[in-house]
Amino acid sequence: VHTRIDLNADVGEGFGRWSLGDDNALLGIVSSANVACGFHAGDASIMRRTCRLAAEREVAVGAQVSYPDLAGFGRRFIDIDPAELVDVVLYQIGALERLARVEGTAVRYVKPHGALYHAVVHHEQQAAAVVEAIELHGGGLALLTLPGSAAGRMAAGRGIAVVEEGFADRGYLPDGTLVPRGRPGALLTGPAEVVAQARRVIAAGARSVCVHSDTPGAALLARAVRDALTADGVTVGPFA
Amino acid sequence: VHTRIDLNADVGEGFGRWSLGDDNALLGIVSSANVACGFHAGDASIMRRTCRLAAEREVAVGAQVSYPDLAGFGRRFIDIDPAELVDVVLYQIGALERLARVEGTAVRYVKPHGALYHAVVHHEQQAAAVVEAIELHGGGLALLTLPGSAAGRMAAGRGIAVVEEGFADRGYLPDGTLVPRGRPGALLTGPAEVVAQARRVIAAGARSVCVHSDTPGAALLARAVRDALTADGVTVGPFA
Amino acid sequence: VHTRIDLNADVGEGFGRWSLGDDNALLGIVSSANVACGFHAGDASIMRRTCRLAAEREVAVGAQVSYPDLAGFGRRFIDIDPAELVDVVLYQIGALERLARVEGTAVRYVKPHGALYHAVVHHEQQAAAVVEAIELHGGGLALLTLPGSAAGRMAAGRGIAVVEEGFADRGYLPDGTLVPRGRPGALLTGPAEVVAQARRVIAAGARSVCVHSDTPGAALLARAVRDALTADGVTVGPFA
Amino acid sequence: VHTRIDLNADVGEGFGRWSLGDDNALLGIVSSANVACGFHAGDASIMRRTCRLAAEREVAVGAQVSYPDLAGFGRRFIDIDPAELVDVVLYQIGALERLARVEGTAVRYVKPHGALYHAVVHHEQQAAAVVEAIELHGGGLALLTLPGSAAGRMAAGRGIAVVEEGFADRGYLPDGTLVPRGRPGALLTGPAEVVAQARRVIAAGARSVCVHSDTPGAALLARAVRDALTADGVTVGPFA
Repeated sequence: VHTRIDLNADVGEGFGRWSLGDDNALLGIVSSANVACGFHAGDASIMRRTCRLAAEREVAVGAQVSYPDLAGFGRRFIDIDPAELVDVVLYQIGALERLARVEGTAVRYVKPHGALYHAVVHHEQQAAAVVEAIELHGGGLALLTLPGSAAGRMAAGRGIAVVEEGFADRGYLPDGTLVPRGRPGALLTGPAEVVAQARRVIAAGARSVCVHSDTPGAALLARAVRDALTADGVTVGPFA
Repeated sequence: VHTRIDLNADVGEGFGRWSLGDDNALLGIVSSANVACGFHAGDASIMRRTCRLAAEREVAVGAQVSYPDLAGFGRRFIDIDPAELVDVVLYQIGALERLARVEGTAVRYVKPHGALYHAVVHHEQQAAAVVEAIELHGGGLALLTLPGSAAGRMAAGRGIAVVEEGFADRGYLPDGTLVPRGRPGALLTGPAEVVAQARRVIAAGARSVCVHSDTPGAALLARAVRDALTADGVTVGPFA
Repeated sequence: VHTRIDLNADVGEGFGRWSLGDDNALLGIVSSANVACGFHAGDASIMRRTCRLAAEREVAVGAQVSYPDLAGFGRRFIDIDPAELVDVVLYQIGALERLARVEGTAVRYVKPHGALYHAVVHHEQQAAAVVEAIELHGGGLALLTLPGSAAGRMAAGRGIAVVEEGFADRGYLPDGTLVPRGRPGALLTGPAEVVAQARRVIAAGARSVCVHSDTPGAALLARAVRDALTADGVTVGPFA
Repeated sequence: VHTRIDLNADVGEGFGRWSLGDDNALLGIVSSANVACGFHAGDASIMRRTCRLAAEREVAVGAQVSYPDLAGFGRRFIDIDPAELVDVVLYQIGALERLARVEGTAVRYVKPHGALYHAVVHHEQQAAAVVEAIELHGGGLALLTLPGSAAGRMAAGRGIAVVEEGFADRGYLPDGTLVPRGRPGALLTGPAEVVAQARRVIAAGARSVCVHSDTPGAALLARAVRDALTADGVTVGPFA
């Protein structure tokens, strides 16, 4: 069990006229920001503004890479050719890196988004593609992933830093996977149960705790988790 | 008049299933490659493959940045907010930089594409936005532009390298602007007239000569220009 | 001055994961619904759901047609070829018609959105394109437009029904055009001033009053206008 | 075995600046045109022009509906929510219907494209969604599909006309499915073998024969098939 824990959230998930989540509040609480890169959400201006906020609060920036799917918010599996997946992951990382640089910060890690997040747990070819992108990048980016994922295993085998995370506001099935969205118990919404879940995933070995950002009250839940962990004597800070 | 002349062409302008131009032939002739960055053409895999070909032939890579307009191939003016234009230019540069890096090369310059190319000649706010993006980038990128453009003037004032180019295969109006596409004399298609036009723009001070890539015979025309310039005792090579 | 007045609002302006405005409340108040058609906002499922709500409340459905510009929410001028504009307008109308039909209703009118709305006031070629689309359609669609617009003039000349509208929640300049967004006085937000503005535009001849939907309190303002007009003895109902 | 056989091909599969296939030649040979509807290829102007050509040659128009995936040309499976799939199919049909109407023709049938074509063979939920769209449409559209597909079975059960097709220029596996693209024998390119394959699929019961359009020589192959069938005493004409 780690005594220094990272708290991460998805941010920058608006697009053009549309906004989503209270990034400003969340970026005052979490230690790592998974910034959308324009493929499921996020546009160049939102990405830059999010990087600026993250830089000001010394929050670590990660590339929240996705399938190309604005219409589906990256939440539906796409049987993309793995060779193309390598390239779209590199494209997204590169775009974010440049905007982060302009705001005085840098990209530290990669977190696949939505359906790609789940695909790299078990889809060997897509997992290998994400790992190959990080390896080709060569800049020491970490991979933020579910414990036991195929991508995590492959990344570790190639000397890439792997950070395993747990979800404070999602229910788990006995096998350690998440209760699918839409099913009862998929989302936890009470501060007490969310804090309890955070403690549980940390006890199980998670080095980072994810709090979702697109639910009402997300910032309050994130604050509750941060305060509880601090009270537990845990240091909250970026892993990277 | 310069004794070392750059020859540039637009490449990587396919998208997904669609291809355009004979990049393989052109990249064996030109010295600089204006690589589409996904906003008017080009996807991540095409960008990477184009960078690889350019790297193999020691052709300099430039970011051919565009309005976000796949449907219009970047050829129609968009009254985009200049602050957003700064960000989309940085996004495109960053994406290309990362893919170029993976292929062992780097982005050396920026060339606005299509309607944005023409906008930065006279539209002060959009010109300033492109220049601001290059300045914020901070990596010494040059700007490839029409002689006398607003963007060129602004860039020079900020210490950015400005390379003025002429078009070998486009007709010019007496005021030095291009004959608009669709009008008689807009496109030159005979090798002799294209070579003559190349010599004319060089005599007028151009340091780079552009040959379009999306017409049949583009590679033959580019070859004719290169051979003629070499016969004239001019060294053909990248400016950057 | 008309004794039967239409109240219209933009609805269905979410996209995928993103929502905008309180369509459910608005569709209980207005008599005409300008339904986004997927080019600036709206996707097929949102369009269908919006048509269903409109059908249930007997609200007339109009096609809120736009430039193809999700990233810019259709709010920036695009110098699109007029011949292409004819076709994209027909495409949008057709898509909405089919989804409306499935929900038991039909498209009655066309209202250009955002920058296209403003373009058809003075841009003769784009105005002619929108009018040509309505004429080619041949199904008796009305055009909802600003008084004195080029499109309105052209449409009337071809026997197309033209409905002139005023804005209850926007400020006007002395020449009858709207105070541009972002300037002081562009948006009216108090119920009293909005009601007063509605009465003013009706007195000036408007047959339809538009209430914007993407501001907090939009439904309250729309309700205030409807109640005031009803108290004035005006019948609120669709023009088409 | 049918004595009247339809010959169909995919057309209108360019997008903006990009073109694909020799539609003009193909539309002089085939009896049914599967017109792309903007989701994997085709834009409003291409759709309209294609409908005009089809109308002039009395070629039946079908809606070639797809997943929303321009970047992947609709060739990769997307795990789209079936309820959304119903709506995007209706959206595409509606858009094409309107453009067809303007050119004096009408949409007669639906043919799913690419990965969706294959999905409706075995993916029960997506097959049901496509069938539901046709049923909700209510206009007597036929479904063009692979023999034995789940969608064909469901459609027949609901009184929808089902037309089974074979591929003249694709190899078949012993189980009646197509040799996957990229494998040896996937594509037939010689006129003799293509004609033989056409005769084989007709003997097996196909009422329509598909000739692909995006290979060099597609028009020649289509012509060879049409001439051979005519010589066999078969009438070539639209099924709808």
